[in-house]
Amino acid sequence: MRIAELSLSTGVPVATIKYYLREGLLFPGARSAPNQAQYDAGHVRRLHLIRVLIDVGGLRLTSVRAVLEAVDDRDLPLHQLMGVAHHALGPSGPDGPPHPGPAGEDGEAAAARRDTDSFLEARGWKVGAGAPARRTLAGVLMSLRRLGYADDAEVLDPYAAAAEELAAGDLASISGGGRRNDIVEHVVAGTVVFEAAFVALRRLAQEHHSAVRFGAVQLAGPLEEGARRG
Amino acid sequence: MRIAELSLSTGVPVATIKYYLREGLLFPGARSAPNQAQYDAGHVRRLHLIRVLIDVGGLRLTSVRAVLEAVDDRDLPLHQLMGVAHHALGPSGPDGPPHPGPAGEDGEAAAARRDTDSFLEARGWKVGAGAPARRTLAGVLMSLRRLGYADDAEVLDPYAAAAEELAAGDLASISGGGRRNDIVEHVVAGTVVFEAAFVALRRLAQEHHSAVRFGAVQLAGPLEEGARRG
Repeated sequence: MRIAELSLSTGVPVATIKYYLREGLLFPGARSAPNQAQYDAGHVRRLHLIRVLIDVGGLRLTSVRAVLEAVDDRDLPLHQLMGVAHHALGPSGPDGPPHPGPAGEDGEAAAARRDTDSFLEARGWKVGAGAPARRTLAGVLMSLRRLGYADDAEVLDPYAAAAEELAAGDLASISGGGRRNDIVEHVVAGTVVFEAAFVALRRLAQEHHSAVRFGAVQLAGPLEEGARRG
Repeated sequence: MRIAELSLSTGVPVATIKYYLREGLLFPGARSAPNQAQYDAGHVRRLHLIRVLIDVGGLRLTSVRAVLEAVDDRDLPLHQLMGVAHHALGPSGPDGPPHPGPAGEDGEAAAARRDTDSFLEARGWKVGAGAPARRTLAGVLMSLRRLGYADDAEVLDPYAAAAEELAAGDLASISGGGRRNDIVEHVVAGTVVFEAAFVALRRLAQEHHSAVRFGAVQLAGPLEEGARRG
């Protein structure tokens, strides 16, 4: 197909496709004439992946490039591909704002990092010392302590149990076999899309349970309320 | 206590405290002399809340202000406070990058929004029509379809079940009673801190299960690997 059709079938504007081609995020089409190239299902697929990383994952172009380079590196073990995706997503959320967790050498930050290590060890999770989420978790523990929660670990247990069950499911669906391209997309999608899905689902479930508990069934949603409040 | 002690006991620099005072995020101390003010436990608490919103939630100052105004509005029902916190957190993640979900009127986006409505209705969740997470979820469903997932709803079910269980727990811990200030902090912390906690825990659990399945137990974490890869 030509670039106009590629645009139609993906919903990505032609100018954006040309930009991705110039930036090397999208591999070139096959030349069919001096000024014309043909694109195929591989290009459609790659464009969808790029848009998912940007629209759902909130990644910047530099992070998209890092993930795509890892996806295209056929020598890279899948385990490391997931690490690259995690790294691109940033310390705890999409890579806009920096919130790297406690880095200081003072007692409070050091204690939070030690507690994180103990927590992960107690759950038996094997996690690299440099995993960005480690620092995020240390920041969470420090925050909980400051907010006056008595027993950090106990408070996180239901979340850790849910996370473990979902992660086991994610990995089971990945390692079922298949072509490398399919598996790689599952790894990236499982990291980016399902994370966004879970965050959205938890907020929706919170709103539902909040409405049920506080008896505040309303016609207008919080978006309108927030806007009304100015 | 004086501003220097307030800084020491919260870890927030004096210049930053002064900035929050000027911006009205932190209420003024009691004047004890023409050029001196006294601060108390309420100021410590408020500073911790501000830092949690910024450091853990990744909120910008304008969003912090919106959340604090809601926290201080004693006439605002708790259900709406949670809505304000969700809104401040943005459509799906911290409020850096915009990823508002499919807004277009074309068939694909409209279908994703209809599927989101059906999905929420099937789970019996009462959610406002304008909830930002609704659009995020529609974006997720559209992405899953583009990535070739056969049955969207089935794929999200384990995530929705986990989200519902955790949200029910969050709300149960909130509605146990107590002073309004305590409850309000629980609402904000439950929304912001536990969301960051869960995202971090899921990535850590993914890394662990990935290491177990792919047999790639390593000494260095993905952070170092990402850095090495350049």
